[in-house]
This record gives sequence, C-alpha cells and structure tokens, in this order.
Amino acid sequence: MRDKKQRIIAVIGASKCTAIESKWAEEVGRELANNGAAVICGGLTGVMEAVCRGAREAGGLTIGILPGDNAEAANAYVDIPVVTGMGYARNVIVVKSAQAAIAIGGSYGTLSEIAYACQRKIPVIGLNTWELARNGDTDNSIIRANSPKEAVALALSLQEGKK
Amino acid sequence: MRDKKQRIIAVIGASKCTAIESKWAEEVGRELANNGAAVICGGLTGVMEAVCRGAREAGGLTIGILPGDNAEAANAYVDIPVVTGMGYARNVIVVKSAQAAIAIGGSYGTLSEIAYACQRKIPVIGLNTWELARNGDTDNSIIRANSPKEAVALALSLQEGKK
Amino acid sequence: MRDKKQRIIAVIGASKCTAIESKWAEEVGRELANNGAAVICGGLTGVMEAVCRGAREAGGLTIGILPGDNAEAANAYVDIPVVTGMGYARNVIVVKSAQAAIAIGGSYGTLSEIAYACQRKIPVIGLNTWELARNGDTDNSIIRANSPKEAVALALSLQEGKK
Amino acid sequence: MRDKKQRIIAVIGASKCTAIESKWAEEVGRELANNGAAVICGGLTGVMEAVCRGAREAGGLTIGILPGDNAEAANAYVDIPVVTGMGYARNVIVVKSAQAAIAIGGSYGTLSEIAYACQRKIPVIGLNTWELARNGDTDNSIIRANSPKEAVALALSLQEGKK
Repeated sequence: MRDKKQRIIAVIGASKCTAIESKWAEEVGRELANNGAAVICGGLTGVMEAVCRGAREAGGLTIGILPGDNAEAANAYVDIPVVTGMGYARNVIVVKSAQAAIAIGGSYGTLSEIAYACQRKIPVIGLNTWELARNGDTDNSIIRANSPKEAVALALSLQEGKK
Repeated sequence: MRDKKQRIIAVIGASKCTAIESKWAEEVGRELANNGAAVICGGLTGVMEAVCRGAREAGGLTIGILPGDNAEAANAYVDIPVVTGMGYARNVIVVKSAQAAIAIGGSYGTLSEIAYACQRKIPVIGLNTWELARNGDTDNSIIRANSPKEAVALALSLQEGKK
Repeated sequence: MRDKKQRIIAVIGASKCTAIESKWAEEVGRELANNGAAVICGGLTGVMEAVCRGAREAGGLTIGILPGDNAEAANAYVDIPVVTGMGYARNVIVVKSAQAAIAIGGSYGTLSEIAYACQRKIPVIGLNTWELARNGDTDNSIIRANSPKEAVALALSLQEGKK
Repeated sequence: MRDKKQRIIAVIGASKCTAIESKWAEEVGRELANNGAAVICGGLTGVMEAVCRGAREAGGLTIGILPGDNAEAANAYVDIPVVTGMGYARNVIVVKSAQAAIAIGGSYGTLSEIAYACQRKIPVIGLNTWELARNGDTDNSIIRANSPKEAVALALSLQEGKK
C-alpha cells in the first residue's frame, strides 16, 4: 500500500493563451513536479500544454482529462490521457480530482472550472484570471498569486487544510 | 411533424434564494408560459422551484434536469423530471438544451451555468446575478434586466437571433 | 401541484433498424401515447424516430436525450430535445429517467442501456432484443414480449411495482 | 516528448467478486505491470481492488475512475484517483481511455462497459464473463481467454491493431 497519497493539483486555463501565460504555466508545471505533485488538466493546447511540458521536463506526472473521444487529441506531454467523450462536462472531473486548482488567465471554460472548485470548496489560486462580484460585492474566493512559484506554494499549502 | 419548435428557456439560480428572488423567478416562469416557452432548470428547490411554480400556474411546461438518481427529488412543479445521476455535471445540460438563459441571483452552480452558456454563445440575461471581469475589464456577456418581464422579453427576442 | 406523476417509458433501439422493428417502434409509441405515457429515447433516427412518430401521431409527448451539442439533430417528432453533449454517456439518462424500458432489436448502445436498467432495477421489456447469459446460465432479467401491444402493457403494469 | 505512448488496459468486473475472480484479477494486474501497461478501472473494491493490488505489487501504475465525489473511496492500490461525481456514467470513461479491456466475471455494470467497448471497437477479452446473443445467434465480440496470462497477452497483442 502506498505510504502517502499522490498530491494532484489542477491547472486550468484556455487552449489559446498569451506568451506570458504559457511561460507561467510551464513554470507552474515545473514547480509542481519539483514538489512531487502531479498535474491534472484538460489535456489540450495552450495553458494545458505548457503546464504539462513544464511538469514533464522536471520529471513530473501529467494527467489530461480529454473532452473528445480520442486519446490522440492529448498534447504531447500528457502521460495519462483520460478519454471522456463528454465535452465540457469533463471540466468538473478536472477540478474534483484535484486538491487545489491554479487558474492561469482563462476564458469561459476556465470560469466554469473556477465555479465548480468554489462550489466544492477546493482552493483556487489565480494568476491573472477572472474577478468575480455579486451585487457590487467582490467575491474573494480566488486567492491571488503574483508569480508561478507563489501560486504553487499556495496550492500546496492550502490543499493540506483540505481533508 | 410539429409546425414550430418548442422554445425552451433555461432559468438558473440557487436552491436557497431570497424572498425577492423567489418572487422574480415565479414571475419569470409565468411570463415564459404566457409566451409559450417551456422552462428548463435544475429541478430542485429555491429559484428552480419558484420558476416551475410560476410556469405551472400559467399552464406552461417545466423540465427539471436532476443531479441525483431519483425523480422524487424534483420539486412538485416539474412536469418532466430528467434523472442524470451525474451531479453538477448536469449543469451543462440545463444550459445546452436552452435557446437562452435567465440567471436570477445564484451561487457557484449558477456561475458554472453562466460560464457554459457564454462558452456556447447562448444569451444570458441577468437579474441581480454575478458580475464578471478580467484584468480589471468588465465582461459584458451577461445582459442585465431590471424586471422579470424585461428578462423574459430579452430572452425571447435574443434566442431568435440564435440558430 | 399535479395530481398524478407523468409516466415516462424509455424506448431503446438502434439508429439503424429493420422495417419490422420500425413498425413495432411506431406501434409502441402509439400505444404509450394512448395510455397517457410519455416516451423518452435517444432522440435520433431508426427505432428512436419511429417511436416518436407513433407517439406524436397519437398525441403523446416525446423527449429525446441527445448525445451531441445540437438540438437540430433530434428527429422531427421529438417535442423536448435535451442536449447533453456527452456522447453515449447520455444512455444512462435515457434509462434513469424512465419507470420502465422497452428494448426493440438494438445494437451495443441498446445493450448498454439494458445493462444500466438492470443495474437500477428498472424493468426491461424486450422485443427481439439481446439475450444474456453468464457461465452458461441464462439471465432472465429481460422480460420477453411478443407484440408491441404486449410490450406496452407489460411496461405500464411493471412500472407500477416500482416506487 | 515521450518516446512511446503509455499503454493503458481497462480491467472491468464487479465490486463483489468470488475468490477465484479476485485471484485472476490480481494476476492480470501483475502481468500488465510486468509488461509495462498501466491499469485503468473503476477504482473501487472486488475485481477493481484485486487488479490494482496485483499491478501495484509488480510496480505498475493504477488509475481509478471513481463514480462518487470523494477520492477517499478509491481502494488503497489506486495511484491516480480520478473523481467524476457522475455515478455509473463514469463507466464509459474507463473503457474509452483504454486500448483494450479485460472483463473478469462481472455484473450489469461490467455488461455496460462491455457494451461501450464493443460499440467503440475496443477489443474485449473475457475471463468467465457475460455471453451475448441476438435472435439466437451468439455474438462473438468478446474474445475468451482461459487464464489471466492469456487474457493479458491477448489484450496487449490486440491493442496493437487499434489505432
């Protein structure tokens, strides 16, 4: 029996991203791997590919939860392609399987993942991502980080608090 | 063959809601029914129950997409309980099955539904619901309404533009 | 509040079917409608289209749980297209939403639906459909009918026994 | 970039199984690990636990696609618990993520997985599992193996033929 549970951190972001978001994602992947945490993501391009590349380079494990029917759609740095065929309904799986989530930029898909994480009380660390408010009151559920390193440190410390 | 497609409008909101949100939801349901549109929602309590009650009173059709395994969990005003057993992954179905969505208040589940609707370019009309921004720039995807009547009018006019 | 719950019977079968299966499905649809039961099915062609056509002609209600992302994929006789975008994972929804299922012919998709129904103890009535065995012992979970009329009578009587 | 894709073989069977099925599952897990293939399964007890135990003992990787909302429900030998919260709809994911499936005994859940695999043309190897027929004609989609060792050899040779 394993001594210790594998830590799994979700990294969420868009399939099209800016150069700086890609750089951040790669660094997040590297940091997670260096800290022994596996990466789970949507398995496609953009932020998803960059984080897998960074993790892979540092010897980490990468899991891609794919929306389509074909494992070949996974980016080249996914170790474990999980084929759901469920379209964007797969977003809930990315988040639920993780102990914390790091959001990098992101569009509406990422927003749905942030929403699911908040609903499940899974800590969300944000790097330049969505800002939420209701009735003019800011929702502070997303914990802001200023660097990939800080994002990973926060994700790993906050997941400890989660049972 | 039917002459005309049944219009289906999603009404999204939390299972616990304020008295005013409940009143709005009921009025939205009534207005939709009066305009011949069916209501699709998550099938449970709060905003979901109120909109179904309003629609039912006005002779409308109500569809509840349930997260659990039991049709009995549907509120008493659901005509067609659809049992998914998929938990919150069912949120995508509520939105995808509609030509437009009306969000009333709402918590993180509602936020995930707004995100899915925006991703699918399904118009979202908001009554006192989430406000979104990225990098300090407001996201104006949610069209704000000032009354249930206006929300329904917007939903029905905007869905026309959608193929 | 409604006096009586809407009865919903699943009709399952392949998207390509024989002429006789199509005739049976149409008659099953007509009989269900004549008995006040709604039809739920996968919403596409073949058996699904025939059962919806029969139900529609007799004034019944038809619900199609679609695998894809587009309501337009529903056959012309579906009143309520439910858009899941979840591929064949939608098969569980067809079955779980029904009080009984009638299987007409069918291929592997139908087999998965029969399996889900048996697992959930939802009665399955078979018209010329799969035969199951384990270790040489026939599995008698599927109740055989000899005609569409008998299939509907069995489905409606057996669903009474289900809470 | 990885040199070679990770081979992933699904092992499917019931959460309650006989002593001999448990022994077979454990041996299948061991053999798969010895051949460098990862195991994907439903992550729970019975056959699922036995195959993970066997694979783990031989140093293999084990992936559990869980029906519920809690990673803690995974058996102690799952390396990568994937949390779906989708109930038995998760069965499609177990199968779709694999290049071949080995069925050991099994009840209706296993039958649904066999059906999905056949539909997707994923080879299914059977050890004392379901027998299928239609109209009195045996369906020979399930390839019968006489031992765990043969089952693994068949699974690994047949997955080569799949693109």
